[in-house]
Amino acid sequence: MTTDFLSQLNIKTELTRDLLTTFIRGEMDRIGIKKAILGLSGGLDSALCAYLAAEALGKENVILVSMPYRMSSKESVEHARLAATSLDVTTYYEIDISQQVDAYFASETTPEPSSESQRQNRQGNKMARERMSILYDLSYHHNALVLGTSNKSELLLGYGTIFGDLASAINPLGDLYKTQVFQLSEFMGVPEPICTKPPSADLWEGQSDEHELGASYAMLDQILILLVDMRCTRGEVIGYGFEESLVDMCLNRMRTNQFKRLPPVIAKLSQRTIGKDFRYSRDWGT
Amino acid sequence: MTTDFLSQLNIKTELTRDLLTTFIRGEMDRIGIKKAILGLSGGLDSALCAYLAAEALGKENVILVSMPYRMSSKESVEHARLAATSLDVTTYYEIDISQQVDAYFASETTPEPSSESQRQNRQGNKMARERMSILYDLSYHHNALVLGTSNKSELLLGYGTIFGDLASAINPLGDLYKTQVFQLSEFMGVPEPICTKPPSADLWEGQSDEHELGASYAMLDQILILLVDMRCTRGEVIGYGFEESLVDMCLNRMRTNQFKRLPPVIAKLSQRTIGKDFRYSRDWGT
Repeated sequence: MTTDFLSQLNIKTELTRDLLTTFIRGEMDRIGIKKAILGLSGGLDSALCAYLAAEALGKENVILVSMPYRMSSKESVEHARLAATSLDVTTYYEIDISQQVDAYFASETTPEPSSESQRQNRQGNKMARERMSILYDLSYHHNALVLGTSNKSELLLGYGTIFGDLASAINPLGDLYKTQVFQLSEFMGVPEPICTKPPSADLWEGQSDEHELGASYAMLDQILILLVDMRCTRGEVIGYGFEESLVDMCLNRMRTNQFKRLPPVIAKLSQRTIGKDFRYSRDWGT
Repeated sequence: MTTDFLSQLNIKTELTRDLLTTFIRGEMDRIGIKKAILGLSGGLDSALCAYLAAEALGKENVILVSMPYRMSSKESVEHARLAATSLDVTTYYEIDISQQVDAYFASETTPEPSSESQRQNRQGNKMARERMSILYDLSYHHNALVLGTSNKSELLLGYGTIFGDLASAINPLGDLYKTQVFQLSEFMGVPEPICTKPPSADLWEGQSDEHELGASYAMLDQILILLVDMRCTRGEVIGYGFEESLVDMCLNRMRTNQFKRLPPVIAKLSQRTIGKDFRYSRDWGT
């Protein structure tokens, strides 16, 4: 029998909202940028991030961008539009990424994927990086700061594309497990259809996070909070009744995806090396 | 009169080559990846990086990729080819990025640049990110590690595109000033035409790094090594005879581009936050 640690994942929603809106305002004030921009996938994380940004900065200072691929589900675009409409933001883009992604894979010089799953992964990563690239282009055009929308479950499990959806300037959601994203979204009034649909990266039809990861977020988040926040050992977590293979999957993903959470490693030669002994905070210059 | 600090920039070329090839081999052994991949711009930094990788791993384990845009200079492609041919690597790609970049800017949904210089910058950034995206796609296909090619001068001055050319897994050149890249390239036998041409990001015709930065690398590198490695104050550097406006430009660029050298900032909520109190080395998992 598994001990229930779901209550450990409960957050004080009002306090969390206040901390995160203060974080967004504070970081942006120091950098001296007034507008924030983020990609709306149609899913819960980006919708919540948009709600937090609008609360922190005012709807006139939030730029939302939906970037569908031709195979993205219709529902995703509708839900992105629903979030943008509900918030009544001044600037909302819908930019189709199909041409760019297809041009690359259709080119003779691009090597063929060696299997169907490789094809899906390569296409998914290319899409995620094209979206990053567009978001950064628009951020430059509007002098806006790019907000990240990856949650703590995704970041720990490495469930995201490096230099794609994992890329941002500041990330208000990176310390919230998916289960907590859900709690805060309900509290902030994110539209119900977005809150209740199954989580999906929508990189191909019928994709489901929980199917790909092999367990529900409720289950995974309990294992992660035990391992990370409560500093339990592998043995202790298994002792609480969690499936051994699932605990090992979490540990394994956390370790092997550490590279996604760090800047490039630089070979040390001099007396002061970037990232080693030349270290300042992000807003050192302001 | 300016005191000459050029001798401070002299490196022991043979030792540096050995340290950097050991770095490349060591990082890759620990991760368990045999092949390295990098983009060849036709310029000196990426050529040197290719030479180091071939020395460290053998020419059969280095994948080189030239990714010209239709407005890239013919010379750049020729020089990329020259480096690849001189090294006789087994795998060399030439992939034109024009279609993808043009499709984005030609689209009705993409906002028009507000000036010519904005257009150049936006196009340059889009190109740099498209190249990163292709490099990562090929790295996945070949199970190869992406080597970075930004030198210390560029990294400190923020002369590069975040999540574009600044993105990599490991960067052998990040602790070498441009002046030192030149010394090591000559020693390693990088073809002479690549060593002697003026440094350029080649994002538009006739672009020159030194023109854009406002001084020669020889001058900038002396200021940077004084400020960074020798920990001199602004006043001391000016006291040595370096131009005040140039010293301030360096200081200003170093500070305001710090964000390009760091991963996204995550709002702290929990007991253990990624990048704050959840910190491991890149190869923790191996």
